[in-house]
Amino acid sequence: MRSITVDLDHFSSAIHIGAGLLDQLPELLARQGLDGELVAISDAQVAAHYGARLTALLTAAGREVQLLQVPAGETSKSLEQCGQLYRELIARHCTRSTVILAFGGGVVGDLAGFVAATFLRGVRLVQIPTTLLAQVDSSVGGKTGINHPLGKNLIGAFHQPELVCIDPLLLATLERRERLAGMGEIVKYALIRDRRLFALLALNLDALLDLTYPDLLETVIATCCGIKASIVAEDEREQGNRALLNFGHTIGHALEAIGEYRSLRHGEAVTRGMAAAVWLSRETGRLAPQEAQAAWQLLARLSPPPPARNLSVRRVLSYMANDKKWDAGSQIWILLEDVGHACIVRDVPAGMILEAIGFACREEWN
Amino acid sequence: MRSITVDLDHFSSAIHIGAGLLDQLPELLARQGLDGELVAISDAQVAAHYGARLTALLTAAGREVQLLQVPAGETSKSLEQCGQLYRELIARHCTRSTVILAFGGGVVGDLAGFVAATFLRGVRLVQIPTTLLAQVDSSVGGKTGINHPLGKNLIGAFHQPELVCIDPLLLATLERRERLAGMGEIVKYALIRDRRLFALLALNLDALLDLTYPDLLETVIATCCGIKASIVAEDEREQGNRALLNFGHTIGHALEAIGEYRSLRHGEAVTRGMAAAVWLSRETGRLAPQEAQAAWQLLARLSPPPPARNLSVRRVLSYMANDKKWDAGSQIWILLEDVGHACIVRDVPAGMILEAIGFACREEWN
Repeated sequence: MRSITVDLDHFSSAIHIGAGLLDQLPELLARQGLDGELVAISDAQVAAHYGARLTALLTAAGREVQLLQVPAGETSKSLEQCGQLYRELIARHCTRSTVILAFGGGVVGDLAGFVAATFLRGVRLVQIPTTLLAQVDSSVGGKTGINHPLGKNLIGAFHQPELVCIDPLLLATLERRERLAGMGEIVKYALIRDRRLFALLALNLDALLDLTYPDLLETVIATCCGIKASIVAEDEREQGNRALLNFGHTIGHALEAIGEYRSLRHGEAVTRGMAAAVWLSRETGRLAPQEAQAAWQLLARLSPPPPARNLSVRRVLSYMANDKKWDAGSQIWILLEDVGHACIVRDVPAGMILEAIGFACREEWN
Repeated sequence: MRSITVDLDHFSSAIHIGAGLLDQLPELLARQGLDGELVAISDAQVAAHYGARLTALLTAAGREVQLLQVPAGETSKSLEQCGQLYRELIARHCTRSTVILAFGGGVVGDLAGFVAATFLRGVRLVQIPTTLLAQVDSSVGGKTGINHPLGKNLIGAFHQPELVCIDPLLLATLERRERLAGMGEIVKYALIRDRRLFALLALNLDALLDLTYPDLLETVIATCCGIKASIVAEDEREQGNRALLNFGHTIGHALEAIGEYRSLRHGEAVTRGMAAAVWLSRETGRLAPQEAQAAWQLLARLSPPPPARNLSVRRVLSYMANDKKWDAGSQIWILLEDVGHACIVRDVPAGMILEAIGFACREEWN
């Protein structure tokens, strides 16, 4: 087991990563003083795979747990679903001492996290991520949120989990496409902050995706969580360096939204967004051409599916023009100076952005 | 003008109180660095009285402001109304630099505050309370929230306003019953923390209610905000002494809920709840009988209307049995040791509570 602490003002979040760690959940809860009644929020798919096991292992340790299920998929991140979850918490007489376990992927983590942030003005939260994307990204750092019919993640709160319990063995039931999408975020950490991780990924990408070496995957996940923890500790509310974590996300979000959150998954869209950001980094003279080539080579191995046929540069740009960040007239871009070193840039010419979007939508990058 | 600062970890909230202060809002905003686009959220009643004035004075100062209205009354504190407000904020291209002005009474402050807490994971908030209750209580301290069909204030967040602008002259358009309800909370501060304020209120209650001396009212409001600020600074998240502010609220909330939030207003219900808490304080031997008499005399002058005819001790108790706090089996009570000095008590016998509820519902207290 590897452990990382996110040190925030007057609050510490404990992250533990280990193959088979789910079985140790009762000890981890006890060690963290999380002794209230437990409510696990999960989706139908995760509950089918692991719900009975979670309930059994907690019950065996003398803990009561209630399991609430939401439908799998992004549509559960809605105000209506929140209202339904609040109703269930109230009906079960939950109090401020209740501990919410978010047991699932990014959707469940964001939704259950937001419910924990807002039920009775905040109850304690544990994240137990079950997808690679959630294990390296969304379960760490305290961002929670739901969607509004007019846009993704527009409603939310910062609410730190007191405990994050990451078990890479839970990834065995994921489709390869889901693991590939999570690997996109791992490559992101390497590109923005860790040249050694980049080299390790270039050598071991397939073995990692196939879960051949659980220990190596544990190391990689812990490295990513460590990078995120250190960035979040510097800047919890994203007023400065936390923006580095958005590398590839500006164009990525637009691609994802244009596909109406179906044709491209988040990680896939971000992979394309990163390819575009690498192109911008090279084109603005920051990144050496051979570094850009190396980045594209690794990104291409994540083989993000081609964007939907009807995806045009014009549509992406019109989406971005309506984007909250873009609209502020102070769009920032995260670009690379080297593989392993990102920076914040404010003055990217509009014409160049158009070209970068075109680049993101290409079949091949070079 | 009187000014108070709420000092929290890494955050300061500035409270200013002054007769006619609304006209100085542009300077107060500028001084606080609140230079983003402004969205004022108000209710139909407040907007009818003061909406045009607010817009005019901000426009004259070169600030753009959009005014959003919700229906007046508690029913606006709903998830549905939040969804509607998010929609309007998105349609107006609001960003993280948007500043929300909560311009109204407690309902508007709680609702607009919750929207500010959760829109884009939190935008800056200014409270401009227009009722006496909001000026001395809900606008200060950062509690925001909405109701769930199954209970009041069950959904919420802590979100501190950066600026609270309190103008007692805005109270001129309030009905006397509204001012009486607010005075209930003022008496609460006196009872729990300030014997001198209690004496001042006993001498000047009618003049204060009639707004005869705006300067005296300014002093009283500033005293109350100062008490609340110091308690909140000690304990923002209500894990300790902030509970003192709940004096009279346990039975008060039950009375209010039983009347389905119509027959008794919040402040009126709390006045009755305080009478009951004074009775418990005397009955448990903490408070001297002559102190209890003095407290009841002042509370009676607030002349809370009699509870609804169908209000029985049994109904109140059954409501409390379903209450989240009660259910935890660790109900705490705020009782008095003296006028001006409250304490937290955990072991009040159930039978005595029954009697206290009966006492709260009496026509006369002594």
